[in-house]
Amino acid sequence: MKAIVKPRPMPGLEFAEVSIPEPGQGEVLVKVRAAALCGTDIHIEEWSLWAQNANLKMPLIIGHECSGEVVALGTGVLGIEIGDHVASETHIPCGHCLQCQIGEQHICANLKIFGVHTDGCFAEYAVIPAICARKIPKNIPFQVGAVLEPLGTAFRTAAECNVYGKPVVVLGCGPIGLFAVGAAAMMGASKVIGIDISDFRLSGAKAMGATHVLDSSSDDVVKAVLDLTDGYGADSIIEASGHVGAIKTAFRYLRKGGRFGMIGLPTKPIELELGSDIVFKEAKVFGIHGRKMFETWRGMEEALASGKLNIAPVLTHEIPLESYAEGIKLAKSGQANKVILVP
Amino acid sequence: MKAIVKPRPMPGLEFAEVSIPEPGQGEVLVKVRAAALCGTDIHIEEWSLWAQNANLKMPLIIGHECSGEVVALGTGVLGIEIGDHVASETHIPCGHCLQCQIGEQHICANLKIFGVHTDGCFAEYAVIPAICARKIPKNIPFQVGAVLEPLGTAFRTAAECNVYGKPVVVLGCGPIGLFAVGAAAMMGASKVIGIDISDFRLSGAKAMGATHVLDSSSDDVVKAVLDLTDGYGADSIIEASGHVGAIKTAFRYLRKGGRFGMIGLPTKPIELELGSDIVFKEAKVFGIHGRKMFETWRGMEEALASGKLNIAPVLTHEIPLESYAEGIKLAKSGQANKVILVP
Amino acid sequence: MKAIVKPRPMPGLEFAEVSIPEPGQGEVLVKVRAAALCGTDIHIEEWSLWAQNANLKMPLIIGHECSGEVVALGTGVLGIEIGDHVASETHIPCGHCLQCQIGEQHICANLKIFGVHTDGCFAEYAVIPAICARKIPKNIPFQVGAVLEPLGTAFRTAAECNVYGKPVVVLGCGPIGLFAVGAAAMMGASKVIGIDISDFRLSGAKAMGATHVLDSSSDDVVKAVLDLTDGYGADSIIEASGHVGAIKTAFRYLRKGGRFGMIGLPTKPIELELGSDIVFKEAKVFGIHGRKMFETWRGMEEALASGKLNIAPVLTHEIPLESYAEGIKLAKSGQANKVILVP
Amino acid sequence: MKAIVKPRPMPGLEFAEVSIPEPGQGEVLVKVRAAALCGTDIHIEEWSLWAQNANLKMPLIIGHECSGEVVALGTGVLGIEIGDHVASETHIPCGHCLQCQIGEQHICANLKIFGVHTDGCFAEYAVIPAICARKIPKNIPFQVGAVLEPLGTAFRTAAECNVYGKPVVVLGCGPIGLFAVGAAAMMGASKVIGIDISDFRLSGAKAMGATHVLDSSSDDVVKAVLDLTDGYGADSIIEASGHVGAIKTAFRYLRKGGRFGMIGLPTKPIELELGSDIVFKEAKVFGIHGRKMFETWRGMEEALASGKLNIAPVLTHEIPLESYAEGIKLAKSGQANKVILVP
Repeated sequence: MKAIVKPRPMPGLEFAEVSIPEPGQGEVLVKVRAAALCGTDIHIEEWSLWAQNANLKMPLIIGHECSGEVVALGTGVLGIEIGDHVASETHIPCGHCLQCQIGEQHICANLKIFGVHTDGCFAEYAVIPAICARKIPKNIPFQVGAVLEPLGTAFRTAAECNVYGKPVVVLGCGPIGLFAVGAAAMMGASKVIGIDISDFRLSGAKAMGATHVLDSSSDDVVKAVLDLTDGYGADSIIEASGHVGAIKTAFRYLRKGGRFGMIGLPTKPIELELGSDIVFKEAKVFGIHGRKMFETWRGMEEALASGKLNIAPVLTHEIPLESYAEGIKLAKSGQANKVILVP
Repeated sequence: MKAIVKPRPMPGLEFAEVSIPEPGQGEVLVKVRAAALCGTDIHIEEWSLWAQNANLKMPLIIGHECSGEVVALGTGVLGIEIGDHVASETHIPCGHCLQCQIGEQHICANLKIFGVHTDGCFAEYAVIPAICARKIPKNIPFQVGAVLEPLGTAFRTAAECNVYGKPVVVLGCGPIGLFAVGAAAMMGASKVIGIDISDFRLSGAKAMGATHVLDSSSDDVVKAVLDLTDGYGADSIIEASGHVGAIKTAFRYLRKGGRFGMIGLPTKPIELELGSDIVFKEAKVFGIHGRKMFETWRGMEEALASGKLNIAPVLTHEIPLESYAEGIKLAKSGQANKVILVP
Repeated sequence: MKAIVKPRPMPGLEFAEVSIPEPGQGEVLVKVRAAALCGTDIHIEEWSLWAQNANLKMPLIIGHECSGEVVALGTGVLGIEIGDHVASETHIPCGHCLQCQIGEQHICANLKIFGVHTDGCFAEYAVIPAICARKIPKNIPFQVGAVLEPLGTAFRTAAECNVYGKPVVVLGCGPIGLFAVGAAAMMGASKVIGIDISDFRLSGAKAMGATHVLDSSSDDVVKAVLDLTDGYGADSIIEASGHVGAIKTAFRYLRKGGRFGMIGLPTKPIELELGSDIVFKEAKVFGIHGRKMFETWRGMEEALASGKLNIAPVLTHEIPLESYAEGIKLAKSGQANKVILVP
Repeated sequence: MKAIVKPRPMPGLEFAEVSIPEPGQGEVLVKVRAAALCGTDIHIEEWSLWAQNANLKMPLIIGHECSGEVVALGTGVLGIEIGDHVASETHIPCGHCLQCQIGEQHICANLKIFGVHTDGCFAEYAVIPAICARKIPKNIPFQVGAVLEPLGTAFRTAAECNVYGKPVVVLGCGPIGLFAVGAAAMMGASKVIGIDISDFRLSGAKAMGATHVLDSSSDDVVKAVLDLTDGYGADSIIEASGHVGAIKTAFRYLRKGGRFGMIGLPTKPIELELGSDIVFKEAKVFGIHGRKMFETWRGMEEALASGKLNIAPVLTHEIPLESYAEGIKLAKSGQANKVILVP
């Protein structure tokens, strides 16, 4: 089958012909119908510092966001049948650690990531652990199914910010930020203020339901958010930029008692004033790494199936798997949101 | 000034000319610009069993839902000024009991109700304790301001049901039920299923955002809700009917682990099977009596001001205060939702 | 092996010699080291109405509360090894329903109960689904391990009542009630008020940490609880009596805004005044059916291992498995708390 | 009357004779019976950078932690009577901002601090706003009443960490840390691990209920905490050291998914790796600035009155008000916990 492979520890990827894998115990074989490019894939391609430390097994079929059809079952698989449509949950839990025992398997102490620590989905077929093969309703299109993983991260963050009837800021309007804008709007935030430095992304934010957008390269975002919130600051901030400077600034427009949900991954340390940023402000800062398995999935699927959440504006490009290099270029161009690869 | 008065302990109301009251310490005088009829007012008019036991002080100016303009301040009032627009929070807390001390003043141990235990707002002017005179944004019209009190009860119930991405049933589509439909839709419920026996009310539910409506006089509501929820039942039920039979039935379409928010007031006891209805099902049944002061108000005002919540379909009638008798007739007819009286 | 069997649908049990079962896929074989009698077992012995409707498979080895040592593994079992000490979680989830998917597997839509719908543990050996074989620390004695199941129900209820620094009532001081007394005391309830009609049980409550006990056959419990709570009523009630009259009365000493955790299973319907008992009071009534799998287990094991929770006073009797009839007599006598059977 | 005064913006304090103040509208006059030294007072004495920026009104009677007896009432005071025992809540809310409106008055947007922005309690008499004069049970001794303010901060942090049945670390065992140790122990933490560099403080931690203590000047605290928690790390950390290095290290022994409650105030910025410290770990970091008014007070008073919480080991010194300079020396010596001044 066709696959995109990271062959060795240096920059670059290869388009290769490899054999179709076989599902082992507790695994399913999925015919991939749509896969989505993520920043992680680009890190691997570029062989960034993160990638060098990520403990990749190589050669590696990359890609972790996908949907498809189950075509074979390994032994011991219950509850999934051939023909089912599934999407990939990328967090592979061990099933036995403390976190797995107490309902937090998505942050398993021994977490493996599909497409990073195991072969992934930029291929015609992929083997997925049954526990990570989330059955999805057949009325959810495969392109949408392919991005449920990142959508879920954003959806859950908005949910944990408890946004209804309150102003919320989404910091960084890349794909995850755009998903967060859509989720916050759907959950009844009174104002959804998108912040970015790219017109393309800010217009995406508007399309996803932002009531206001701010260009932090030209606007005084602190003043603007305070003006939009009677001087108090936003009740919640959903951070999807990973930008150290922007995050530091954001504490200034978080209201006293507000929530700060962190998704983005800065590449360098951030300096915080714990006194003024956290203690006196009683800020509630929390990290979100993935989706609750599978509470988040269920809510997101219901929202999509009901039509209340429409993510079409984020799915800007759909190209053949073979054109992955062009996809990466698009993703880096800043003129694409989510790029879907079709095997 | 003109006022609608309950003169003595027997059926009936009177339209009377009384003197304009003066605000005492910690009170404000409000020129009433819109008031809304509520079931409570009708109980008082009919002199129902509830009214007979409600410990009314008579003669009583009735009416508790209103909005208006502050025209005079008693001594010791801070934070409110003449000219402010206010709406009435009807729960008058003592300020000193356990509940008042721990953030639950809306269920004060010594709770008094405006327009029941004190003179109310079906009049040209009303005296309101400053703590219950909620300042509202001037872009909220007075007719809307007049119904913030019942809207808040519904809004809060939907909020505590945590409805986003989940199917919810609203049982009983009178004004409070309709408000609950609107709130649940705004907060991102995947399905909002309105149940009533009146076509008029069910069409109101649709106008407020119900995705499905059921007529319990003809539909098999248990089967219908189970069909709409993959056989599991609704994640939440917002009960605004006060109908014993409907409530008993509703436990059958509540999902295991679901929430059951109770607003309606049945006139007779209900028989429950605690084992199957509550314990095995792990139902979470909770009463809602009013609004959090003033967390609920703030969320609701933000939602209205943002345009995300539109309650116009509930405000079906607006008549002069003098026509209150016609208003009561309208309210009883089943062909009106909320009737606004304008002094 | 020796086993206690329900042979057919009529009153009675039999002591029988049966063959040692073999663990199938996803199951483990446990050498039972201690088992505990529960009210359910007595229902089955007496062939009560509940038992007649419980859909038992017969002949049935009864018993569901136990601990022991793993002696054999079926295929596909991961994370458990021969020699491990385990206790039985009696709720067997399907793994695929909505509840199983969203972290509520303990109230699985297709729930089976170990020892009711499958052969149980009143025997020398028992087959337990691997997911229900909870590994326990070896410093927890087997007699304690045998009662973790009912202890967990009580422990979780106390946890969800959020009892620290608040007065709590435990209604019914049978074994589950006694466990609840101990859990509430450990979690820092300011007052733990045990209510029962048996001196034996009330003295057990004192031994488990009750600060006050009330005999509802002679005390005016409403007055007494109000007196102990400055007239407000208890912040929480943990209901473990299943007694309809006592439950109805309890709403009168629940404070406005209080929590009412229901474990007990009344044999007949209860009449509630939803208005005064639930709505005006904003009571939060919730059923507890078992333990969170396995968040509750983890907390309980930590508490036991740390010595902060000591349940010795509840383990009043320990007899050989063969003497089960005497055990049942003891349990019915009202002069025993938990009776441990040792195979 | 006698008072300790900060006369002017430079180091030092003065013992002065001033006139007894009079309570204005909404204020009470309290005969101070016990006051407690806090780090803030020492900052003011030393004229630290913090003090220079704290916007003090001078001359200022310092001191904010106290208890006493109400001896006079200003106008408009309800719910407090002459002779009542009260303790000082030091957060003076405006009553009108967003936070005050939504139940978060303790982090009022316009917060003033008693004894910092108003005259305080290191004097024979003090004027306290009625809203900040917390009536306390007469069986709570005045020395205990004087430290309810800092105790409440610690008590609330432990409560929000939800510690029952879980291992918790208290970082920094000064007075607030010691209170946190006591609160966590009372609320049923399975392990309470106190960390400090002072033997005196660590022995205080043991006296308050720490199950383990670590000296971070000699122990490898990361290894030690991991060893005590099966390698996972602590479920919660209560940070009361304000030490940047210790806080940075603490993220390494916080379990994935753990809570990090911050009370301490570092004097310089801290560098965090948001990726590993917050996002991947899903850490929940939250600031605690004071007590919920008055939910925290009520729980704390109940806990003290019940005898479940005993803070005697923290109250190491009691001296006359005149000897304040010695008190400051004691507090700085590291051989005192809480120093009580008696006017």
